[in-house]
Amino acid sequence: MAKKQGFIHDDFMLGCRAAKRLYHEYATDAPIIDYHSHLPIAQILENINFASITQVWLYGDHYKWRAMRSAGFPEALISGWPKPADDRERFRAWAKTVPMLIGNPLYHWTHLELKRYFGVDELLSQKSADGIFDACNQALARPEFSVRSLMERSRVEIACTTDDPADDLERHARLAESGWPIKVFPAWRPDKALAADEAEPLNRWLDRLEKAAGARIKSYDSLLAALRSRHDLFRDAGCRLSDYGIERPYAVRYKESHIKAAFKKIRNGKSLEGDDLERYRSALLHDLLVMDAESDWTVQLHLGAKRRNNLAGFRALGPDTGFDSMSDAPLGDALVALFDRLDSEGKLGRTIVYTLNPRDDDIIASIIGSFQRDFREGATKGNDIPGKIQFGTAWWHNDHRDGILKQMGALGNMGLLPAFVGMLTDSRSFLSYPRHEYFRRILCQKLGSEMERGEIPDNFDLVGGMVRDICYRNAKRYFKLG
Amino acid sequence: MAKKQGFIHDDFMLGCRAAKRLYHEYATDAPIIDYHSHLPIAQILENINFASITQVWLYGDHYKWRAMRSAGFPEALISGWPKPADDRERFRAWAKTVPMLIGNPLYHWTHLELKRYFGVDELLSQKSADGIFDACNQALARPEFSVRSLMERSRVEIACTTDDPADDLERHARLAESGWPIKVFPAWRPDKALAADEAEPLNRWLDRLEKAAGARIKSYDSLLAALRSRHDLFRDAGCRLSDYGIERPYAVRYKESHIKAAFKKIRNGKSLEGDDLERYRSALLHDLLVMDAESDWTVQLHLGAKRRNNLAGFRALGPDTGFDSMSDAPLGDALVALFDRLDSEGKLGRTIVYTLNPRDDDIIASIIGSFQRDFREGATKGNDIPGKIQFGTAWWHNDHRDGILKQMGALGNMGLLPAFVGMLTDSRSFLSYPRHEYFRRILCQKLGSEMERGEIPDNFDLVGGMVRDICYRNAKRYFKLG
Amino acid sequence: MAKKQGFIHDDFMLGCRAAKRLYHEYATDAPIIDYHSHLPIAQILENINFASITQVWLYGDHYKWRAMRSAGFPEALISGWPKPADDRERFRAWAKTVPMLIGNPLYHWTHLELKRYFGVDELLSQKSADGIFDACNQALARPEFSVRSLMERSRVEIACTTDDPADDLERHARLAESGWPIKVFPAWRPDKALAADEAEPLNRWLDRLEKAAGARIKSYDSLLAALRSRHDLFRDAGCRLSDYGIERPYAVRYKESHIKAAFKKIRNGKSLEGDDLERYRSALLHDLLVMDAESDWTVQLHLGAKRRNNLAGFRALGPDTGFDSMSDAPLGDALVALFDRLDSEGKLGRTIVYTLNPRDDDIIASIIGSFQRDFREGATKGNDIPGKIQFGTAWWHNDHRDGILKQMGALGNMGLLPAFVGMLTDSRSFLSYPRHEYFRRILCQKLGSEMERGEIPDNFDLVGGMVRDICYRNAKRYFKLG
Repeated sequence: MAKKQGFIHDDFMLGCRAAKRLYHEYATDAPIIDYHSHLPIAQILENINFASITQVWLYGDHYKWRAMRSAGFPEALISGWPKPADDRERFRAWAKTVPMLIGNPLYHWTHLELKRYFGVDELLSQKSADGIFDACNQALARPEFSVRSLMERSRVEIACTTDDPADDLERHARLAESGWPIKVFPAWRPDKALAADEAEPLNRWLDRLEKAAGARIKSYDSLLAALRSRHDLFRDAGCRLSDYGIERPYAVRYKESHIKAAFKKIRNGKSLEGDDLERYRSALLHDLLVMDAESDWTVQLHLGAKRRNNLAGFRALGPDTGFDSMSDAPLGDALVALFDRLDSEGKLGRTIVYTLNPRDDDIIASIIGSFQRDFREGATKGNDIPGKIQFGTAWWHNDHRDGILKQMGALGNMGLLPAFVGMLTDSRSFLSYPRHEYFRRILCQKLGSEMERGEIPDNFDLVGGMVRDICYRNAKRYFKLG
Repeated sequence: MAKKQGFIHDDFMLGCRAAKRLYHEYATDAPIIDYHSHLPIAQILENINFASITQVWLYGDHYKWRAMRSAGFPEALISGWPKPADDRERFRAWAKTVPMLIGNPLYHWTHLELKRYFGVDELLSQKSADGIFDACNQALARPEFSVRSLMERSRVEIACTTDDPADDLERHARLAESGWPIKVFPAWRPDKALAADEAEPLNRWLDRLEKAAGARIKSYDSLLAALRSRHDLFRDAGCRLSDYGIERPYAVRYKESHIKAAFKKIRNGKSLEGDDLERYRSALLHDLLVMDAESDWTVQLHLGAKRRNNLAGFRALGPDTGFDSMSDAPLGDALVALFDRLDSEGKLGRTIVYTLNPRDDDIIASIIGSFQRDFREGATKGNDIPGKIQFGTAWWHNDHRDGILKQMGALGNMGLLPAFVGMLTDSRSFLSYPRHEYFRRILCQKLGSEMERGEIPDNFDLVGGMVRDICYRNAKRYFKLG
Repeated sequence: MAKKQGFIHDDFMLGCRAAKRLYHEYATDAPIIDYHSHLPIAQILENINFASITQVWLYGDHYKWRAMRSAGFPEALISGWPKPADDRERFRAWAKTVPMLIGNPLYHWTHLELKRYFGVDELLSQKSADGIFDACNQALARPEFSVRSLMERSRVEIACTTDDPADDLERHARLAESGWPIKVFPAWRPDKALAADEAEPLNRWLDRLEKAAGARIKSYDSLLAALRSRHDLFRDAGCRLSDYGIERPYAVRYKESHIKAAFKKIRNGKSLEGDDLERYRSALLHDLLVMDAESDWTVQLHLGAKRRNNLAGFRALGPDTGFDSMSDAPLGDALVALFDRLDSEGKLGRTIVYTLNPRDDDIIASIIGSFQRDFREGATKGNDIPGKIQFGTAWWHNDHRDGILKQMGALGNMGLLPAFVGMLTDSRSFLSYPRHEYFRRILCQKLGSEMERGEIPDNFDLVGGMVRDICYRNAKRYFKLG
């Protein structure tokens, strides 16, 4: 093991011998299957180099924007609104924010990224800002900093982007044809179809979907048909995961006639509300999940985000710019109703439930344990998959050491931690793969210290194998990608 | 202290000197008062020996079933549905599941039970399965493995079963007459009376209750009279605890005429729903709790379980087979309303509130502190009981080290941890007494490490006495059993 | 560093070198800005000495009362109801309760207060009770135990009391004129104005407010005018903080005509309920917060307390006597709606959100991050304040080490811990300043151990500066008091 140097050293976050051994022998060289990300496929296809570290770090990272707003900088230095300030000035503002992030995962991520990609050992601060800015920008121009090189250097084996059903998959196809060894697959995120509370943007999206599917969408049935045709194309492009970003599950009862009428209403320009909206979402969510099951995809439910909290901010900057929070809406009854219905139809396939609010960790871990098995007579499909219904890793506001440990704790206490499919980046940035490293260090520290305290067997084959599974092999087996 | 050997050794879970001393000097030899269990009285009376370890471990343990389903084994190897596989095969499937339970309390319980009862030091796995299966089965045939011997070897002093008001208490009487030194008392669990959402099974149960009580039950008043006559018989049989397994407290306002009419409706074969159901449950729960207070019993409220989540599974296997989860229904307002009404009537006696969802630990601990004293003029009864209203230990999905520590933390932070009545098994198995050992080790590790960090006094008389109280003496004083 | 002696020693709660250094070099001598307390201004003005330790500790401390009730003492020894027992007897009952508080913050506070003010090293218990009682009472008669001396010895620089809009500020004025170097400012707590669920006490209060404001209050507009005139007087008296003790935020939509009619109803002696009550509270809370913003005050929202749980107890003893708990009412949607409306009007100023139920820590920390910036065109006011919207420290039932660490953890994980304004006493007692010491020790232990584990930089200038900021400098900058 290399000697300790700087803040980010070989044993960063590893506090005992067993943790170090687990990390260095079983985790560090495992490839990455990044099954959920928001990477822009165009930038991968074109294999671009970024012009500056500001561009990578600050042009779109709303985690950093929130921090900088809390620190009191002008918005021009943050998101660049209403007029972007100079890249160096923006970086300086970020550098001044960093010391205020002690205790925040951004502090760790920032220095991991500086160290892993740029070899920077210095802490980022007002004092070091200009030097680091210049060094990073010089590096970024080099071939080994093209986005594909960054992914290769990070040992990515497979990555999934996040795509709208109306999105063109042509760039995915061209990248696949290019022979690049890293596989990049689309993932299906049909959230816009559920946003029936605002008819106007929904209709604009339906018009886009009509074009993509080459079919008119006048009725709920034709909506499903259009989605199904796109679903088939996604599957042909290698897609094996869907994803739903919903504050809470929708699972009220409805009649088909309700839904047909509600959809006509939408197409006539009327937004849905109240029971109408709830029924429409319940029907469509169910029907989409059935599609996923029939294609043998893994469903992801990202629950618990309350979005657009600050309307003035949202109007200025649009979605995903830092105005979202956790939700405290109850979710137990609806999640059970959703799963129970799908299960009774034989359509509850591989599913990952993520929750943004850690106070829901325990209920999620207890609910998934009720649905690991299809009990219809003669049913066998999926019953042999270890951890068929997964509790997904901590995400977004909850993606920090405490959140990661709490999620793994709840999963371990109530289910099978060794069957966990582990980490993903959920990121737009090509520099965020160290989040896998961060997760792996936290995992190894947890298990290593449990070994040393005698709470789990002091057996490196056993526990090391479990580490390798969680870091890589479970995802490889579970998702059937590529 | 004996030297460390194997995974379960003398100092298992004890990480510092003070913890070891507390455990070995104050906890390990304390008798067990198992005031809440689901032990079958018939097996105790007949003093049976189990034919195989599969029978003890897998014929009815839905904790293990959930784990095995998550691991992907066929149900025939788990619950034995639709046709049970061979005992050895079922044990092998369990043995293969065990290494996937690293991080789950089942991993600890399994190896504690193997070590304490069978002297097995080997870890259970596919490799060790057959040897352990044969060794355990040989042992189980011996006299010291009869169920009474198991209880004696576990230092049980008193155990309470869980009984329905319509249940015959004859076996309890015969066991009491047998002169066996371990006392086994019935406990009163009238949950079926509250299940007015399904008239048909409720009416079948009411018919059983009619027979048991020897009286017709045509009206709500005659229901109460029948329950009261059974309650008296339970009391004569030594019962001193009741138990209510309810998702949340019921405490809406109602008129007596509502309840009388609702009960007639039930007897006419109609299920209750909505307000009718809520009022009926509120009335009956209140009236049952008044009965308990008048008999000076300890009430147990097991809150927070959401049952029968997976209907296909429930239809295949019935209740308590692994399809239950935590609930996230709010409970603060109703619990306060329930307690406040009873308190205003002088009918809030010794009560233990358990919550399945640990996110409710803090609110429970804060609510019970408001009701420790009867403030009606001249009232004295119960006002001198330390910890009259108790926060019960973590149960079921929450019965693991994290859950136990969180519950004790909340109780300590807001109330009197030294007055805590401590652990119970809540189990159907005669091998589950090591859960008391497990709890005691966790308690001693918590207090011992606090001593060493100087957070509580470094005084073994004081802290050791507290350990002894929580492990044994508080329950002895509080429940007035036998 | 002085050598360890007794339970409370120089390194109490400090478990590693870095923690000790942080505490002793950066925290211990920082002055106290006690920006939220319930100290009685009259006692400060008159600079009284307490007649006995019972008087300080037991005449009004409902934390202790709850503990003593749980321990089973007669109420005459606790709150003194219905007739107070002798001071020595009451102290003895408390002393017997103390060993049952192992694990409760009262155990630490009690011994910190005994050590810091009275130099007592002995643990309080039945055995030591009389000796400690006599020693404390002798001390309390000395000049250095007058309330002003106690504040001086505690290094208080500024303290804020909690005052009703109808309260006279004359004593504050006289104290200010006295030239005493410690500044004591009033703080504005208009909760009574929101209590429209009981018309009778509200009308009595409105009558008091009429007198204080010298104006009739017949309409909602005249209510606002009266409040505004008092608000101006409070501001002139140095008030810079308001405070709202509400179970949850109120933020439903309403028409002005609703509110005017509702207020007329109140003045006609009718209590409000249902939608009427919710709208009235939403309107008045909003209008009060606008007043605060226009005066550039810091708003405090104390959320999550459910009060008067035990009506018999409340009737016997009145408010704030130990019958309150946490609430589990959802608060996310309403808090966002409240903030978003104020923000859209440019009236969301410096605000501290406290939550009593720690399960809401994460949602609070995630919500405040959405509102740190005013995005209206051209808006600049407040946008440069680090941590403009603060997550307040753990309070009341949650004011213990676990609660403090969980709050700081959530704030750090999602926001800027270095910008945190830190601790306050929230106390009626002149002996409770060691709660600042307790908080500082917990903070230093947290950061020191993170330094030693390499999770934050091993840089005392950086981390020590952060400690100093949280203990003192942030509050100094943020509140603009004096």
